Order: sequence, then C-alpha cells, then structure tokens
Amino acid sequence: MSSVFGKNIKVSIFGESHGPAIGVVIDGLPSGFDIDTEIISKEMGRRKPAKEVYSTKRNEADNVQILSGIYNGKTTGTPIGAIIKNTDSLSKDYNNLESLLRPGHADFSGFIRYNGYNDKRGSGHFSGRLTAPIVFAGAVAAQILNVYDITIGSHIDSIFDLNDIRFDNTQITKEQLIMLRGMDIPVNDRSCREEYLEIIDQARRDLDSVGGIVETAIIGISAGIGSPIFDNIEAKLSSILFSIPAVKGIEFGEGFGITKLYGSQANDSFCLHNENIYTRTNNNGGINGGITNGMPVVFRTAIKPTSSISKEQDTVDIKEGKNSILQVKGCLVYTSPSPRDHTRCSIRSSD
Amino acid sequence: MSSVFGKNIKVSIFGESHGPAIGVVIDGLPSGFDIDTEIISKEMGRRKPAKEVYSTKRNEADNVQILSGIYNGKTTGTPIGAIIKNTDSLSKDYNNLESLLRPGHADFSGFIRYNGYNDKRGSGHFSGRLTAPIVFAGAVAAQILNVYDITIGSHIDSIFDLNDIRFDNTQITKEQLIMLRGMDIPVNDRSCREEYLEIIDQARRDLDSVGGIVETAIIGISAGIGSPIFDNIEAKLSSILFSIPAVKGIEFGEGFGITKLYGSQANDSFCLHNENIYTRTNNNGGINGGITNGMPVVFRTAIKPTSSISKEQDTVDIKEGKNSILQVKGCLVYTSPSPRDHTRCSIRSSD
Amino acid sequence: MSSVFGKNIKVSIFGESHGPAIGVVIDGLPSGFDIDTEIISKEMGRRKPAKEVYSTKRNEADNVQILSGIYNGKTTGTPIGAIIKNTDSLSKDYNNLESLLRPGHADFSGFIRYNGYNDKRGSGHFSGRLTAPIVFAGAVAAQILNVYDITIGSHIDSIFDLNDIRFDNTQITKEQLIMLRGMDIPVNDRSCREEYLEIIDQARRDLDSVGGIVETAIIGISAGIGSPIFDNIEAKLSSILFSIPAVKGIEFGEGFGITKLYGSQANDSFCLHNENIYTRTNNNGGINGGITNGMPVVFRTAIKPTSSISKEQDTVDIKEGKNSILQVKGCLVYTSPSPRDHTRCSIRSSD
Amino acid sequence: MSSVFGKNIKVSIFGESHGPAIGVVIDGLPSGFDIDTEIISKEMGRRKPAKEVYSTKRNEADNVQILSGIYNGKTTGTPIGAIIKNTDSLSKDYNNLESLLRPGHADFSGFIRYNGYNDKRGSGHFSGRLTAPIVFAGAVAAQILNVYDITIGSHIDSIFDLNDIRFDNTQITKEQLIMLRGMDIPVNDRSCREEYLEIIDQARRDLDSVGGIVETAIIGISAGIGSPIFDNIEAKLSSILFSIPAVKGIEFGEGFGITKLYGSQANDSFCLHNENIYTRTNNNGGINGGITNGMPVVFRTAIKPTSSISKEQDTVDIKEGKNSILQVKGCLVYTSPSPRDHTRCSIRSSD
Repeated sequence: MSSVFGKNIKVSIFGESHGPAIGVVIDGLPSGFDIDTEIISKEMGRRKPAKEVYSTKRNEADNVQILSGIYNGKTTGTPIGAIIKNTDSLSKDYNNLESLLRPGHADFSGFIRYNGYNDKRGSGHFSGRLTAPIVFAGAVAAQILNVYDITIGSHIDSIFDLNDIRFDNTQITKEQLIMLRGMDIPVNDRSCREEYLEIIDQARRDLDSVGGIVETAIIGISAGIGSPIFDNIEAKLSSILFSIPAVKGIEFGEGFGITKLYGSQANDSFCLHNENIYTRTNNNGGINGGITNGMPVVFRTAIKPTSSISKEQDTVDIKEGKNSILQVKGCLVYTSPSPRDHTRCSIRSSD
Repeated sequence: MSSVFGKNIKVSIFGESHGPAIGVVIDGLPSGFDIDTEIISKEMGRRKPAKEVYSTKRNEADNVQILSGIYNGKTTGTPIGAIIKNTDSLSKDYNNLESLLRPGHADFSGFIRYNGYNDKRGSGHFSGRLTAPIVFAGAVAAQILNVYDITIGSHIDSIFDLNDIRFDNTQITKEQLIMLRGMDIPVNDRSCREEYLEIIDQARRDLDSVGGIVETAIIGISAGIGSPIFDNIEAKLSSILFSIPAVKGIEFGEGFGITKLYGSQANDSFCLHNENIYTRTNNNGGINGGITNGMPVVFRTAIKPTSSISKEQDTVDIKEGKNSILQVKGCLVYTSPSPRDHTRCSIRSSD
Repeated sequence: MSSVFGKNIKVSIFGESHGPAIGVVIDGLPSGFDIDTEIISKEMGRRKPAKEVYSTKRNEADNVQILSGIYNGKTTGTPIGAIIKNTDSLSKDYNNLESLLRPGHADFSGFIRYNGYNDKRGSGHFSGRLTAPIVFAGAVAAQILNVYDITIGSHIDSIFDLNDIRFDNTQITKEQLIMLRGMDIPVNDRSCREEYLEIIDQARRDLDSVGGIVETAIIGISAGIGSPIFDNIEAKLSSILFSIPAVKGIEFGEGFGITKLYGSQANDSFCLHNENIYTRTNNNGGINGGITNGMPVVFRTAIKPTSSISKEQDTVDIKEGKNSILQVKGCLVYTSPSPRDHTRCSIRSSD
Repeated sequence: MSSVFGKNIKVSIFGESHGPAIGVVIDGLPSGFDIDTEIISKEMGRRKPAKEVYSTKRNEADNVQILSGIYNGKTTGTPIGAIIKNTDSLSKDYNNLESLLRPGHADFSGFIRYNGYNDKRGSGHFSGRLTAPIVFAGAVAAQILNVYDITIGSHIDSIFDLNDIRFDNTQITKEQLIMLRGMDIPVNDRSCREEYLEIIDQARRDLDSVGGIVETAIIGISAGIGSPIFDNIEAKLSSILFSIPAVKGIEFGEGFGITKLYGSQANDSFCLHNENIYTRTNNNGGINGGITNGMPVVFRTAIKPTSSISKEQDTVDIKEGKNSILQVKGCLVYTSPSPRDHTRCSIRSSD
C-alpha cells in the first residue's frame, strides 16, 4: 500500500497538511526537456480556489521549490525532487476536531488504517492539499507531452444539476483545449460560468456543498498506446484519476450511456480519409481493446460534493465512544479538491 | 505494457484464442488454503453463454488443467500455473476477416500496437476468451476470501433500457450474494430475468446486440484496507475491472449520481451501534479516502454492447487500403465477455 | 515474495519437479522478432548433464511446448507462454526422503516458508529443474539481443582448485563467445576440459561433489545502459543471477580482487581511438556508476558444490524430531544446476 | 531505470551534490514505531570521514530535516519525506573539471546515459553524497528491526592487503554487533585499526587510494524469509548493496571460497538442540534455496579503491575531443563512499 505510482516514470508523494512541507519525487523522466517554471506556477495557481467567490484565511503560496532533476532549465534525467512548504499552519486548533469523525472524510477509515498514529491535523496525508504535488507532476508532464503535440484539457461538464455542453468527441481542437486551460471556470458554454458560481454560492449560503463532473480530452495521442489485459489505457488512467480523493466514478467515451445503445450504434465504424484511418463516431472514447486508436481520448470523472460543510451532522466521538453532533462553524466552503480549510473553525459537540 | 497484474499477488495471463492453449500464473498466494476444483469448474461454467438462449458450434469445455501450486487440494505457496486448451479452433477460416477492421474491436488499435505481428485469429490475445483465466484466478481468490468471511456477488443492474432493483447499500447479506451467484441470470427482481432475455434475443433477431450494467457488492471486508493517494481501493478495483475488454465505466457508491446530491446528503454520517461504528447511508460505497470503512463495498460497471454483430457495418479494408462493408453472416450473437464465436462465419466484403 | 522478475519485460516461472509441467510466461517482448525453435532446443540441451560423464535414469526431453506469443516464427508482442512436461516422474519414491532434511538444500527453510504445504517431491519448486524455464527465457532473449549484435558467452573459470584462463577483459570477440557456446565444457584453455571432468568424476567416485566459478562476458552492449542508485546494471544482473539456486557470489570486473589494487591501478583510464572512447584496462567490468561504458561487461559467478551427495551426512528427521543420518544410495552425482536426480534413491536413516 | 527501490516498502532517492538539497521518501512503513532522531544523527555521523585522519574543507552537517511521516516520535504509516540541504556548495569551481572524464567515475557513462544534460557539478546524482539518504533510510529501518530483535553489524574485513579476523559464522552475538556499530573503524581484531589507518594514510601520501572488503552479519532474523526463484534473499540483498557506487562484488557465506570445498564440506548439516534446528556450520550464510534458515545471514561486499586520487591519470577531454592528462591537485583523499570532495581542486590538463 503506497503513495508511489508508475512503472517507468514513478511519482512518489509525501507530506501532511500541517507538517513542515509536502512534496513529490518524479523518477524516470528523460533528460533534455525544457521545463518552464512559469507554466508550473500557473498550473499550481489553477488548483487554488477562485478568488472571486471564495476566500480563505490561510493564504499559502503553493510555491514549489525544486530541489533536483532540473538544471539550466532542462530535465537532467535524474529524479526531480520538489517540496511545497506549509507556511501558515496552526496545529493547536485541531485538538477537539480530532475526536469527532467528520462524515465523508477519511477520519474513521484512516484511524483504523494507521491504528490512530497518523498525523490528523488538517486531515494530514489525506488533505486535499496533497493534490498540489500531483498538479506539479502534471505541469511537468504536460510540458514534455507538448513536445509531442499531445494536449490535455478539461471542462466542468456539470455542477449539481446544471450541465455544460459536452465535447464533440470527434472534433476537439488544440485551440479549444488551450482556451479551456486559460479559464478560471473552464466551460464550453460560457453562459454556464455564472450559473455554476451561483449554484456553488447558494450551497455555501445554505451551509452545504455541491459536486460535479469533469470531462477531459487528450488529443494528439498516437494510435497503438496501451496493452490488452491489465496495462490498458482505461486501467492506467482510472487508476491515477482515483488518486484525487473526491473522485467516485470514471467513464470513457459514452461510458455508462453506451449501455443504452445498440451494438450497431455503439461500434465506431472505421473510415479512410487522406490515407488515415478514423472512426466516424467516438463512443469508445478513443480506446479499443485498451489501446488508443488515434481518436481523441475522452473521459468523465465524477467529483462528489465537498465533504466539509457547516451544517450540523450526526457523527461519533471516537474518544468518548458515543454518538455526537458535529458542527463546523464560521468556515467558508470550498470546492474539491481543497476540502481542508475548515480546520480553523470552532467545534461544538453534544450528544 | 503487460498482461501481469498485482504487487504481492501477481496474476500473469497469456494465450491467444486459436493457439494451443491460454493460461494464467498466480504468484504469491499464501500456502495451506483449501482449493476445491468443483467450485472452480462451476465458476468457469458461469462465464459461458446461457444455454437456453444462445448456442455455439464451438463447444469448448473451458476445462482448466492445474499444472502447479496446488497439492493435495491445498495451495502450496508457490505459483499456481494453469492452462485451458483451445481444443476446437479452426484457424483457416480467418484469412478474409483479418483484413477488414471490425468496428468496436481491437483490430485496428492492435494492428498498430503490434505492427501487425499479433496473432489475429479469433481476436488472438484480445479475445473475450482471455477472461477465462481471470475467472479462474477469481475462483481461487474467492475460496481464500471465503475463509475470512468476505463474500462477493453481483447482479445485472440493467440490460439496455431495463433496470433491476439496486442493492440496498447498507443491507446486503451473504445469503443474498450467494443466491445471486447460483442464478444463471443474477437479478434482485426475479421478474427481470425473462425481460432481460427477451431484450437480448430481440437484439439478436435484429442482427444487433445490447449491453448493460453490473452491480457488485463485497461484504465482510474489514475497515482499514487501502491507502491514500495511489493505492486506494477505488484505483485498485477500477484497474482490474477495466481488464475486461467491454468495460467502459466504473462508479463506486452513488458514483455519478452523487454529483446530484448536496454534501449534507452525500456525506455518510457515522453512528455507534453495539460498540461498532457504521454509516447510516452508504453513498461512498464503503470507501472513505480510498480506504474501506467496514460498510459494503459497492460499485457498478458499464459493459458496452457486444461488438460482434451481424448487421452490415462500414469499415476499412486494411490490406486493400479502401473503405469497405463488413458483414458477418450466420453468426449467433453472444453477450460479453464472450464475443469470439463469430469467427466461423463467412465474410462478404465490398467497397 | 514471488517468482516474477522484471519491469518492462516480466518473466514468471511456475511449476514443481513432479507436477504435470513446469513453465514460464514472458511478458512485454516487442513484436516482430524472429525466434528459431532450433536455437531454443539447443540451449535447452546445454542445460542437461553432459552425457559422457554422467547418466540419469530420468531421461526427460526438456521439450518446450510454446503455447502463445510466437506466431509464424515471430514474436507477436503478446505474452509468450511455454510449458515443459514432467513426463517421467514417480512420486511414490519420495515418502521417506521428505522427513530427512537434506543439508545444503531448501528442505528446512522451505518447510518453514510454506508451513509444510509445499510440494516436496523432487524438491518441488526448489528443484534445479526450474532453471529450465529460465534457460528458455534466455534462449528467446539471446535471439533478440543478437539482432542488436549483443553477444553473451561464458566459460568455466574454475572447478574446485583448477583454473581456466580468464577472459582478457578488453579483448573479447564475438567469435570467441560463440565458440564457447558450442562447447560441452566451455573453456578458454582446451586442456582444462579433461582435467575438469576428472575432478568431477573423482568427487563422484568419492560420493562427493565439487563446485566452481563461471565467468561471463557481454559484448556489443552500448554505453549508457543502466541508472545510478537502484537500477544500476550490477544490481539488475546480480538480482537475476542469484535466481540460480547454487549461486553464492557475484563479482564484476576485478571484483573482490580490485580491493587489492591501488586506486591508480583500479581506475580504468580513458583513451580516444578512431573517435571512440575506450578504457585501457577494464577492472570495472564495463560498468561505471552502475551504467555501461561500452567496454565488455564481465562478471564471475560462484557456484557451490552440488548439495546432492551420496556420502553419509548428519541431519534432523523433522517428523520424528530427532537427529538422524542421511544416506542417499546408488545415486550418481550431478553438477549444478541439476541437483534433482538423487530422488529415485533408497534412503537409510538411523539415529 | 530509476532511483526507486522496493515493493511493499519503497525508498525513493533524489538530489544532486550541488543542488539545493538531496532527499529520500520512504513509503509503506507500518505506523506506530518509535523513531529516535538521535540514533539517526549518530548513523549519519558514521557515514562521514573519520576526523582523526582526514579533513575536508567542506564541512556539511548532513543534518536531516524530516518533513513528514513521523509525528510525536512515531511513524505515522504515511510516507516519510526527508531532505539534507547542500549548504556549502560552490558550483563555479567545476567548469574545467567537467570536460575531463575522471577514470573510475561515472563521468563518461553518465554523459552518454543522460545525453550530457545531467548536473555534473560534484558528480551530481552520482555523488557519494547520495549514500546519505540511504543511510537515513537504514537508520529508520534499523530501529524498526530492533523491535523484532534483528540486529545488523559490519566490520572492515580487509583494507588493501591486510585482513581483520572474520566473523565466526555460527557464533555472532548482538553485543558484538552493537560494539562494532560504536567503533569509528569497526574491526574484530582491535590491532587492525591502526594498521588500516596507516595503509590508508600511506596511500594518501602517495596521492593514491585503497579499497577493502566489508563483512556484514544479520542476526535474529527468522527462518522462512524469502522465496525461491527471483525474490530470494541473496537477490534482494545484492540488489540493494550494489546501490552503493563503489561496490564491485557480493558473496554470501563462504561465497567464492565455497567453490574450493567438497559438497560434503560445503553442506551445512542440521542438528537438533533444545527443540530448535541449527546448522553445525554456516557456509551458506544462513540462506538455503534463497530462504533464511535461522542462522546468521553473513555476506561480504567488495569496495573498490576510491576513484578520486591526486595522481596524474590519462583520460579524454570530451569537449576538446582529445587525449589528455588529469591531475586533481591539493585534494585530500577520502575513503568511499565519500569520493566527492576533490571537487574544490585545481585542474591541470595537457595533451
């Protein structure tokens, strides 16, 4: 059981929310690729809550300090080590909170997993903050993929009951994906932006939270990547996507919807155009038999509502061994994957 | 890229549909567990198409020959090697089929992946038949899990547009799961059985196919299994589930549906009952922070419609390099994961 | 703990000496390489005891049956599965032997490791026979390496107290290595052959056995293979070499002898010749910092004397729980790695 | 190719000699074990050159900063991240040195491996300084092993042509190993200490260096650890031991010497004493069939002479593309594994 991912390129994540620093080691990258730290900073900035809607007293820069593996602006081929300091943590606030198991969090399962020895301050290793090293790894990877003209982009397909326009699976352009990467709330239908923010804000005013679905496309990826049985593309991508704690579902192409089609509709027929083979539809999300077919790889990821809410919730006091009520006061609600900042709040418990 | 899965227990699959045999090596099992070959045979039988509705000229016994690792009816602790002979293959029928890329299959992506060198007879290593070694591994694993009172069962949650009754996520019994394992078409609502068969049969008569959703529950699994970041339970389970070629989506607990709930609804509140901690709801499918919480682990898997259909389909003749039409004649349609038996059919191609 | 080796190319070994078959899965080989089964058979033959000196009643052909992964004489890119049947096993002979722990064998450590459940007939999974699948894997690998003009060859550097002439580390030719591969007793100094055989035969007549050292060279391997820290070439090679049960030591270049040199002698100075960089000496065995430097990779492997001897030996009867004497009668002594054929012998035990 | 080691417990090393910091992530340790940072500091101190004989202008504290995974003095079960800052590096001194390939170093093989992009200052990722994170990992591991009464200790078996007294393989005590761990020059025969120092000092005065052999014992390890074929104890230990750059050979038990024994001498006969099974000799170094047998695990490691010497050496100037002479002036010579501090020296090159 581990926080290490990968075979030829290994990503090793460490750190707890209120320790001195969190960090990442990326092992196995090839040498000689340009890495622009400005791009990394920009991606790190995208991970943080949108300033217009939310605010947080804890203002951490998420400044990444690269310790190794990049020299004169290029990958050296040896492991990249990077840390992000936890500059603004106040550990003394957490004592009461620790005994009340927060519903939807890993407080209980983590307690059992680590026999109570894990650092529980600010959710510790379970904190949404631990997605920051993953974003760093992604920002490095994206620059290498860019050399091969592979582009990845996402839009927020839905928030609660409101839906954006989905990607046209067969017609996704690099420009479209780059534009989405530049938006604070990436959507295909611009009118969704305000509505999404209003839904989130209303939930916050109700001391509650909402979730949504992210749709992602990878274009420029060659046919022939992946392998049958276990190392198929769907297995590899789902495996890494579930590392984001709030993810509860993954589907490729039409996904669950493909079960409502006939085979004759679901099969993506092949056609030859300018000596290249395409599929006319892309219900299989660019993947046949676990291997890319050259069409855009498209998948959707279900993100559950932020667990951290201010409403009263029934729970158990694990120290006292009795049923209790948890209320986290005065906290602002954050969208995943940053459900950590409730931690400065006062706690009222009663049985 | 590989057909090997696992860390402490490794499963290695090999074989092609029309080679001498397919097989599996299971490495790392503990010694001294009873393995009943009758149970294995029964599970292997469940993988085959239901006899009442379908028939296949190719009648392969799927008799597993265990070569090592089980001695005097118990696991030895050394690797289990097992093979299933391909007794009834006729390789000469496939010559024409090979050049026509079957939509929905891995013909094209596999061709690129292996530079055309893979054994394409009967889909080769991509054949649904390669799920047989996985079923064997599962049948061994289930007997070891049974010693720890862990039970796994599934029902067909939907076929095309018809839905069975879902599991009550908090109230799943061992008896219920064992009963499902004994049914040819496992359903919670018995009335679904006939309707499911009629939907499948109608699609077959229309030279077409349908897919569906499988809902699975694991009960008896302790709290505390799994790890945050990469080795979480959702990542591990999704990774292995996508090894079944027709799977296009996975969701845990309420899955995609949880995005339509408020946080106050989605969070499973804890309660203490007889000194044990439970959750009142199970929207997170028994998993918090990637770690089991002791509640039933529940997930749904989307299975696309069988790719092998008899309807005419547009495609490309990869040898001739021109657009063509594929029609597979005289074949009976099979539900996944056995989409291989179209292979005796005659082929008509035209451009 | 496992019988699976490798990262991108995985080799999975299974089988016991007296089960139906032993075998191997090789996963991750590239597609399109020619594999000549004649070469495989020849290499399998080299593994067997030299006929002139030894004989064994158990005459197993070591015929490999390839089940998958090779089609039309070429690798398909999907896993190669292969089995070797155990055609001539008689399991009833082993009952008495099992309770007497054979010194130098894995009888005791294996008993503890597997809680007594392992198949102990003919040493089971510990049998020297399990090197046959490794030889098969090597015979496949050598053919692929040959395409890249990489050649591997060995000579018997010593038997007991007699030494062959060592390789000249800087001047090893492909012709020399191929010649060695064709010899039944590969030696650089031809006069050693008869003396080696006489030493072995004398030990056998004394109901005893001898060991020796194998020196191996790899030529044609490019500079730049391997990585610092853990994935260095020495670590990878030693890791796989110790899979042969009788190996007790590995050294690269001058190995232990390099500790008797001064730094100024041990350092291999570089020189430029025809625009290529060479080292004038090769005390480091072609490896600097864990990475090949383009010089021949040279290493020596210590093989302990065959454990199976006919002399009386003190031991413990593990069933009776008392000190005993083991005498294996009427057996011929074999060189490693084939220490299995004592198994038809009668046993006399006494306390 | 990677700097990550391990399966259930993964150790990931990163850093270059003259970057901001080097570090390590240890993933998969169990929770709740006491970790004493004093013990860690003491072990880190042992890695540094003995003060009496040597001196270095670069005085780095090797102070480890633990960033995660240890809380309230105990392992949390989540990854331990730790860094060691490079406080005293002066990168400007290295420009000339880089173009002259140092014999015995990874300058050439590393250049090819990384296409010249690796950080070459102070040997970069190849620096002996990178053994510091490994020592840290070992110091943590030793404290956990201590709970299970497993003790590891080493003595310097030889320096150049002088030998210490070897361990009595069957009679190694915990007290003996702990005493060795407390000595600056660990030897069984105390009189060796002064002689060893004199040999090293004489070589230094001759602008040269020497190597030696380390003998290590592990006691208290249970029988039954390890597995046949690939995950045997010899393979695992040798694999990690070769991660120390200067190691050129490994042998277990009698190692290469066992090839000079008859089988009747090499086989360690079993005997029963107080209901426990022992071997009378321990020529196999506590390992049979790759699995521990409960006897002390004993192995020797050959360490080549420090590559960094002040004598003139022939080499190639890789920038100029011509044969040259390298002389590193004014440097003190260090024993491995700290061959890095020559780096402040002036360089004279000529062809």
